[in-house]
Amino acid sequence: MSIANVAIIGLGLLGGSIGLAVREHAPAVTTRGYDRDADVRKAAQKRGLVGTVCDTATEAVAGADLVILCVPVGAMEEAARDIADDLAPHAIISDVGSSKESVAQALARALPDHTIIPAHPVAGTEQSGPEAGFASLFTNRWCIITPPDGVDQAALDALSAFWTQLGATVEIMDAEHHDLVLAVTSHIPHLIAFTIVGTASDLEEVTRSEVIKYSAGGFRDFTRIAASDPVMWRDVFLNNKGAVLEMLGRFTEDLTAMQRAIRSGDGEALHELFSRTRAIRRQVIAEGQDDGRPDFGRKDHGDNA
Amino acid sequence: MSIANVAIIGLGLLGGSIGLAVREHAPAVTTRGYDRDADVRKAAQKRGLVGTVCDTATEAVAGADLVILCVPVGAMEEAARDIADDLAPHAIISDVGSSKESVAQALARALPDHTIIPAHPVAGTEQSGPEAGFASLFTNRWCIITPPDGVDQAALDALSAFWTQLGATVEIMDAEHHDLVLAVTSHIPHLIAFTIVGTASDLEEVTRSEVIKYSAGGFRDFTRIAASDPVMWRDVFLNNKGAVLEMLGRFTEDLTAMQRAIRSGDGEALHELFSRTRAIRRQVIAEGQDDGRPDFGRKDHGDNA
Repeated sequence: MSIANVAIIGLGLLGGSIGLAVREHAPAVTTRGYDRDADVRKAAQKRGLVGTVCDTATEAVAGADLVILCVPVGAMEEAARDIADDLAPHAIISDVGSSKESVAQALARALPDHTIIPAHPVAGTEQSGPEAGFASLFTNRWCIITPPDGVDQAALDALSAFWTQLGATVEIMDAEHHDLVLAVTSHIPHLIAFTIVGTASDLEEVTRSEVIKYSAGGFRDFTRIAASDPVMWRDVFLNNKGAVLEMLGRFTEDLTAMQRAIRSGDGEALHELFSRTRAIRRQVIAEGQDDGRPDFGRKDHGDNA
Repeated sequence: MSIANVAIIGLGLLGGSIGLAVREHAPAVTTRGYDRDADVRKAAQKRGLVGTVCDTATEAVAGADLVILCVPVGAMEEAARDIADDLAPHAIISDVGSSKESVAQALARALPDHTIIPAHPVAGTEQSGPEAGFASLFTNRWCIITPPDGVDQAALDALSAFWTQLGATVEIMDAEHHDLVLAVTSHIPHLIAFTIVGTASDLEEVTRSEVIKYSAGGFRDFTRIAASDPVMWRDVFLNNKGAVLEMLGRFTEDLTAMQRAIRSGDGEALHELFSRTRAIRRQVIAEGQDDGRPDFGRKDHGDNA
């Protein structure tokens, strides 16, 4: 089984990057795309995100071997229902959502007779929309595939080969475990960043302009994550509620312990934690998951000079 | 009043960067430096962080117009006592600590008869030690000076001119207000980052290697901040306790509200916050406080391919 025609539904950061990555790494594969927003379709056309930008989802999926839904996880079921009648019988239906159990259930409800193999490329930036995608987004990133029980092995192999071609390294995982892992490595960090940025911009004693002015002390890093797409992230939290609440509970327990250490002047407890976390950074860099240069190697532009 | 001789006590990231910045931007100024760690002194000598690396603090401050203490805030008082008898009567004593009220008090206790003008350049990276400094660390960054009541205006002007020469933009602020502002923009972000990295590395359901492997979803950003110097940060929390606990209270209130919104499925509350925080990022970039490129413009190295 080989994938010659791919349909991409949703032409934002992820959908657009898949289209561009296919053009670069798998030029023999044809791509058709659709987005329900006419402006996004126009921008996708202009940037050449896919071979053919279609005016309907029906048109985009006709004859596709692989359909990838690149919409917020809360919109997956509706997007799947829209194409249900027009899918080729052999088509593989996949997605790029950040939570996997709820998506698997939504797609199974909408397309009970099709081959559904959810996936999650662990890649992205804080930007979104049809202008944000780029061909190398998946290069050296992980793509976690969460196949259902009894999956068609040939279909799974074809999907894995597709992601490998785009530059990703494929990992197979249980959907439930995926949701717990991503709650820790992605969802809670985002929730915390959104929250602290909200807190800081809403104080009486410190003005918003002071917060922005002195953000280089650490806060600016959180603003990047807190600039991520609001609809995408709303849907992630609503659809991975169990794992997020569980991990949030662990975090607040630990934060309360730190609060107590500060209040009681327990320098040893603080030092013990702060020494331990340094080692994690070294491992992240050693495993190629981040840029090891100080400050991520970013340039300071300094328009405030 | 002009500054011709500077003594730097503590030759880590900050002290070393001051020495290098003086060499680059104010080559007529002589620098002498001291660090209580002999290995650091050796490294400082090798990199030429200051004009003369001295074997004692006494030697370093002899004849200096300006003495800058670049040690953890908990070590300021002892460092000041060590040099008390050897300071020139006209010497300005300053520092680079991240909390200012406690430092002002510690220095006043140790040096009741000297001109003390605490300062805080809002600049740094996650790295520390004598190898970490670089000459452009302060370029286009803010340096907050928190002069005590009745400060000698000529001394304040001289210190301001010094920091301006190193590339920083000087801001004058009340020490108490500084501590509140920095609690929000720096101390709480660090506390949160240290805590979540600790939480994530200590779970039963998710292994540490999974956390590192999938850290590109957001977690890796927190590991950078959580790699900061443990002693420096222990001292910040112990010495800015009041402001940190106050701001931490605000943050946990807001986090609890988000937790409730997730539990009850209140998508509107989530979307409202997530939309608001996006605007802050745009302002941080517009004011030149961060690199506007996606992902801070960092390169993905991808040793995991």
